[in-house]
Amino acid sequence: MRVLGVDPGLTRCGLGVVDGRPGRAVMVAVGVVRTPSGGDPGERLVFLERELDAWLARFEPEVVAVERVFADTNITTVMTTAHATAIALLTATKRGIPVVFHTPTEVKAAVTGSGRADKSQVTAMVTRILGLDVAPRPADAADALALAICHAWRGAAEARLAALAARVPR
Amino acid sequence: MRVLGVDPGLTRCGLGVVDGRPGRAVMVAVGVVRTPSGGDPGERLVFLERELDAWLARFEPEVVAVERVFADTNITTVMTTAHATAIALLTATKRGIPVVFHTPTEVKAAVTGSGRADKSQVTAMVTRILGLDVAPRPADAADALALAICHAWRGAAEARLAALAARVPR
Repeated sequence: MRVLGVDPGLTRCGLGVVDGRPGRAVMVAVGVVRTPSGGDPGERLVFLERELDAWLARFEPEVVAVERVFADTNITTVMTTAHATAIALLTATKRGIPVVFHTPTEVKAAVTGSGRADKSQVTAMVTRILGLDVAPRPADAADALALAICHAWRGAAEARLAALAARVPR
Repeated sequence: MRVLGVDPGLTRCGLGVVDGRPGRAVMVAVGVVRTPSGGDPGERLVFLERELDAWLARFEPEVVAVERVFADTNITTVMTTAHATAIALLTATKRGIPVVFHTPTEVKAAVTGSGRADKSQVTAMVTRILGLDVAPRPADAADALALAICHAWRGAAEARLAALAARVPR
């Protein structure tokens, strides 16, 4: 299963593409889309849309996994993150690619075994799972890869359970 | 000055087009875009984008005025409102139309004289200012018209002040 993980943001939007099945994951691509924090809000969204769409066209993920954002102490950050999330939803849907959401706790638990792992632990485990020589930087890129791994593992397990359930006589 | 006011939302997105200058305002169009609250989040955004773009193409506003959303007790509402706001920003920017934001307090003050007016007072004043026989319904439609009036009045006054300031010798 090929998953594009998106750590949504306007200043930095982490993107990571992973081919994975439970217990296995291979990195296909990683990157960060940056838009200037002082830039026109609309122009930032247009730029992000173009970049995201280019990633979808180039890597053809089966699913897009986006971090589910909750309230934050910084309302501006919540808003720009929500705007970036909307762009991810829009571009993927237009290409017929399903979008799933995972909470930070789910992602941390999937890659480190603990929902309370810190950023450095997540980055270290992502580096190890993907067999990378160097840790992905910045943290947004590592988070995007962690999201993709989380969904590739959870999504595959859920699909298997659904298939098994379908075979049980009722 | 022709302004499209947008009261952003996914379940109901109010739209109102007004031709106005300080003290005067004529309604050009009003409507509400609705998407099913249980629908796929991505499909809802795609639908809203199409509708908004159709309004921009049809009415050719000079400016789009969007309500600035603040924190709410309901985080889900804040998020879907922020998603709708992102779609408004994106579609207008792609057409080269500037987007401005006004707070609910600014809008209420502009049309009623008081930043603490309630919804029914805003609707009543919008109906009177635009010389309508019937009050616009639902409230989202009236709010969108109020936003457009607010910006037509404030924007024109600000442009006049800027023009005057430019004539002052330095």
